Amino acid sequence: MNTDRAMNTVARDPDEAVTAAAGAVAGWAGAAPRERGRALETVADALEAEREELVALADSETHLGTARLTGELKRTAFQLRFFAEELREGRFLDVRIDHADPQWPTGPRPELRRFRTAIGPVLVFGASNFPFAFSVAGGDTASALAAGCPVVVKAHPGHPGLSRRTAEIVGAALSKAGAPDSVFGLVEGERAGVDALRHPLLRAAAFTGSERGGLALARIAAERPEPVPFYGELGSVNPVVVTPAAARARGAEIAEGYVGSLTQGAGQFCTNPGLLFVPADGPVDEIVRRLRAAPAAPMLGDWISDAYVAGADRLAALPASSRLVWPKDGASAAPRLLGMDLADFAGDVRVAATECFGPLGLVVTYERLADVAAVIASLPGQLTASLHGEPEEGDALTELTAALAERSGRVLWNQWPTGVSVTHAMQHGSPFPATTAPTTTSVGTAAIERFLRPVAYQAWPQDLLPPALRDGNPWGVPQRIDGRLTP
Amino acid sequence: MNTDRAMNTVARDPDEAVTAAAGAVAGWAGAAPRERGRALETVADALEAEREELVALADSETHLGTARLTGELKRTAFQLRFFAEELREGRFLDVRIDHADPQWPTGPRPELRRFRTAIGPVLVFGASNFPFAFSVAGGDTASALAAGCPVVVKAHPGHPGLSRRTAEIVGAALSKAGAPDSVFGLVEGERAGVDALRHPLLRAAAFTGSERGGLALARIAAERPEPVPFYGELGSVNPVVVTPAAARARGAEIAEGYVGSLTQGAGQFCTNPGLLFVPADGPVDEIVRRLRAAPAAPMLGDWISDAYVAGADRLAALPASSRLVWPKDGASAAPRLLGMDLADFAGDVRVAATECFGPLGLVVTYERLADVAAVIASLPGQLTASLHGEPEEGDALTELTAALAERSGRVLWNQWPTGVSVTHAMQHGSPFPATTAPTTTSVGTAAIERFLRPVAYQAWPQDLLPPALRDGNPWGVPQRIDGRLTP
Repeated sequence: MNTDRAMNTVARDPDEAVTAAAGAVAGWAGAAPRERGRALETVADALEAEREELVALADSETHLGTARLTGELKRTAFQLRFFAEELREGRFLDVRIDHADPQWPTGPRPELRRFRTAIGPVLVFGASNFPFAFSVAGGDTASALAAGCPVVVKAHPGHPGLSRRTAEIVGAALSKAGAPDSVFGLVEGERAGVDALRHPLLRAAAFTGSERGGLALARIAAERPEPVPFYGELGSVNPVVVTPAAARARGAEIAEGYVGSLTQGAGQFCTNPGLLFVPADGPVDEIVRRLRAAPAAPMLGDWISDAYVAGADRLAALPASSRLVWPKDGASAAPRLLGMDLADFAGDVRVAATECFGPLGLVVTYERLADVAAVIASLPGQLTASLHGEPEEGDALTELTAALAERSGRVLWNQWPTGVSVTHAMQHGSPFPATTAPTTTSVGTAAIERFLRPVAYQAWPQDLLPPALRDGNPWGVPQRIDGRLTP
Repeated sequence: MNTDRAMNTVARDPDEAVTAAAGAVAGWAGAAPRERGRALETVADALEAEREELVALADSETHLGTARLTGELKRTAFQLRFFAEELREGRFLDVRIDHADPQWPTGPRPELRRFRTAIGPVLVFGASNFPFAFSVAGGDTASALAAGCPVVVKAHPGHPGLSRRTAEIVGAALSKAGAPDSVFGLVEGERAGVDALRHPLLRAAAFTGSERGGLALARIAAERPEPVPFYGELGSVNPVVVTPAAARARGAEIAEGYVGSLTQGAGQFCTNPGLLFVPADGPVDEIVRRLRAAPAAPMLGDWISDAYVAGADRLAALPASSRLVWPKDGASAAPRLLGMDLADFAGDVRVAATECFGPLGLVVTYERLADVAAVIASLPGQLTASLHGEPEEGDALTELTAALAERSGRVLWNQWPTGVSVTHAMQHGSPFPATTAPTTTSVGTAAIERFLRPVAYQAWPQDLLPPALRDGNPWGVPQRIDGRLTP
C-alpha cells in the first residue's frame, strides 16, 4: 500500500494539520489543567467504550493476540486518566513567584513570575509494537495533550486501520469535551511525517522505534532552521547481571525467568533482556534447555522478522560468539541464543551490544564478578539494567550498582525488565542510544515535562498574566512564593 | 598568544581532566546535598576574600571597569550561596517513591524509587563578556557542581590570567571543603576544549557565547558516538514593543530608557535590546538625539569590536534600512541606530533580526499596533521580549502578550531587559537560536535541572539505595510517596 496516497477523512495534509494545531495552542494551553484532565478522561472512556472493535482491529493488523491487546488498551486508558490526576495536582506547572525586593543582595530584584507552559504543537510518531500504548492515543500523545500541546500523530504503517479508527475516537471525544478544534490530528505516510517534522510551526517531536529511523528523524529535527526538541526512544539491550551467589541459590529459577522475559511477546519490547552476564559455571545449560523448548511466536510483520533474522546473523558472525540455540531454518523468527566470554565481549562492546529487536539473547560468561562492573560501564546507554543477587552480598555490589545506574534509566533487583508500569516513579529514558534525551522519561507522570517550556513574566500586569501566575491563584495550583512552596 | 601551548600548573590536559572528573563523580554526586552546599559557600568566601586582586586582574584583561566587575563578583559569590540554599531545600532531587501495589489498575505495580542524580562530568565554556558570572566560577559551574557533577572549565581566551587565578581559588576552596580531588579542572585553548567535548566520559556541556561558536560546538556534541546534552546560550536581539499609548504618555522617558539599556556595557549583553518597535509618530527623534550624545565605550577586545562593526555594516546594507545614527569613522565601536518600516522588516525577518553584538539598535516603525503581533510571532527565539504599554490598554494587548511569550523565555512590562537577576523565578533560556535547549534556563535556581538525570530503582535493597531514596529519609529531603509530597 502506498500510504502517502492513502488519505481519507481522518488523515490530513501535514501542513494543514500543523497549522491547525498551532491555531489551537492558545485555547488548549490556556485552559485550566483540570479541564484538560476532564478531556483526557473523556478520551479514555471513549476508547474503552469501543474496546471490542479496537482490539479486534488491532489483532488483525498486529497478531499480538486479544489478551495482550485488551491489557494494552486498559493501560492506554489508565495513563490518560493518570495524567488527568496529575493535572488536577498542578505541580507540573512549577509555578515560582518572586516579589520585587529592593534589598536583594545583587541589586533591586524585579517582580518575576515563572511557570512551565505548553511548548506548542507536538508531532508524535506511533510505534509498531504497542499499537495502543505507544501509538495514536499512547503515552506521548497523553503527556503532550496533558501539557497543553496540540498533537499531530504520524500513524505507524503497521496498523493503519487501527490508527485511523483510534484517531476518529480521540478526535470525537476531545470535541465532545469542548477542546478546541484541531487540537488533535493524524497524518499518514513517511513523506507526510517528514513534512510535519519540518513544519515551521512545529515545536517538538516524540518517537518510539528503531535506532535507524529515530536517528534519521532526529537529524531532520536538528537541521530545521529552528531546531526543536526530539524525544526519541530507540534501542536497548537491557543488560542483566547474575551474581555467583544468586546463580548458586536460584539458578533454575533465574533461567526460567530469563527465558520468559526474553520470549515474551516474541521479544518485541524495548525492555527485552538481550544481554545476560552469568558466571561461567552458571545456569547456561538450563537456559539453553528452556529456550529450545520455547515456541516461535508470530512477529508484528515481515519487515520486523526479516530485520530480526538479519540482526541475529550479524551477531552470530562475530568470531568469538557461539550459537547455543539456533533454529534449523535460518529464516525462522524462533528464539536464538548466542554465547561469548567476558573478555571477547569487552573487546568489541559497541558491536556485541547492538540491539537485535526480537527474541535473541547473548549470554556473556565471566570468571570473576569483580571484572563485570568495568564492562557494564563501557556499555552504551540502556533503558534498564538488572541485577540478580543475594541480600547478603551487600557492599560487594556497590560498584556494580553504580555502573548499572550510570548506564541506564531504571535498575531492577531480582526482577525482569519487560513490563513497564505507569506510575509516578517510573523512568523510561536514559543515555544514548536508548533515548536521545537522557534527562527525560517517556513513561510515567514525569513524561509531561518533555512538552513544557518555562516562561517568566517580569512586572507584568495581573489581568494579562496566565491564571497560574496571578495573585489569588484562581486555578488553585501549588505556587513557590519567594522560595517557599504553598500550599 | 597561542593558548594551546599556554599550559601551566593550573590548566590540564583535557583527557586527564575529564578522566579525573569522572573519577570524582561517585564521591561528589553521592555526598549529601547540604555538604555540597557548604563547599559552594567555601568557594564563594574564597572568591570574595581575593576581591581586590581578582577585580584588578579582570579589569586589566576586559576593560569592563572596577565598579561593574566588583558587582559581577558579588553576584558570582551570591549565586554560589543561592545554590547552596537550594541544595539544603532538596526539592531539586524530585524524589518519587511508589510502593509495590498488587492492586494497581494495569497489573501488580513493582516498588519504584526515582530521583534526579548528577548526569556526570560537565564541560563549561567560559564567556567573554562576564569574566566572573558566566565564566570559571559562574552560573554554569555553580549549577553543575550543585547538581553533583564534576566540572571541567574551558577558559575563555579573553581573560586567561583571571581564568587561571579563579580556577586556583576554586580548586583550593573545594579541597579545603573536603570535595573529592579532581571535582574541578581547567583546560585552555580551542583544541583542548574540543578534545574535552569529545571525551567519551563527558556527559554534558554548557556554553555562553556567539551563535557561530555555539553551533560548531553543539554539532561536535551531537556527533559524538554517544551524543550528550549541549546547553548553548547563543544570540538574541530582545525585541521591545512600544504601544502608541505608551509612546504618547511617556515618549521621552522611553527614549531615555532605551538608549541607556542599549549602550550599557557597550551593548555587550545577551539581553541587549537590539530591536525596537515604535509607532511611526513615536519618539524616534528623541532616541536619535540621545544616542548621538552617548559616548563610545571600549569593547572587550578587538575581536569583539571588529565583529560588531562588520555586523552593523551587514545590517546597514539591507536596502530598506536607513542610518539614523552612524559614526563618521566607520571603524568606530560607537553606538549605531538603523531604521526600517514594519513591512520591510517583515519581508526579511531572518536577516533583519540577526544579532549584532554591541550597541546597535534597529528601530522598526509601525502604523497599526494590530500588525505587530504577527511579526513578533515570526521572529526567531529570544531570551527576552519587552512591552511598554499603558495599564488601560488591557485586552488589546492579549494577542501581543501571547506572541511575545511564545517567542521568548522572559517577557518584561515597562522595564528594560539588561540586568538578569538571580532568583528562583528567573528564566534565561528560550527557543532557538537564543538557546539550544528551550526547556531549560542558565540563570536562577532552575538551572540545576540541566545537569540532573532521572534514575529509577526497582525493588532495590535498602542498603544499596542512594540515601535520598531510602525509607527513613536520612538526608531529610522532600519525598513524593505514592503521589503525595512529604513533608
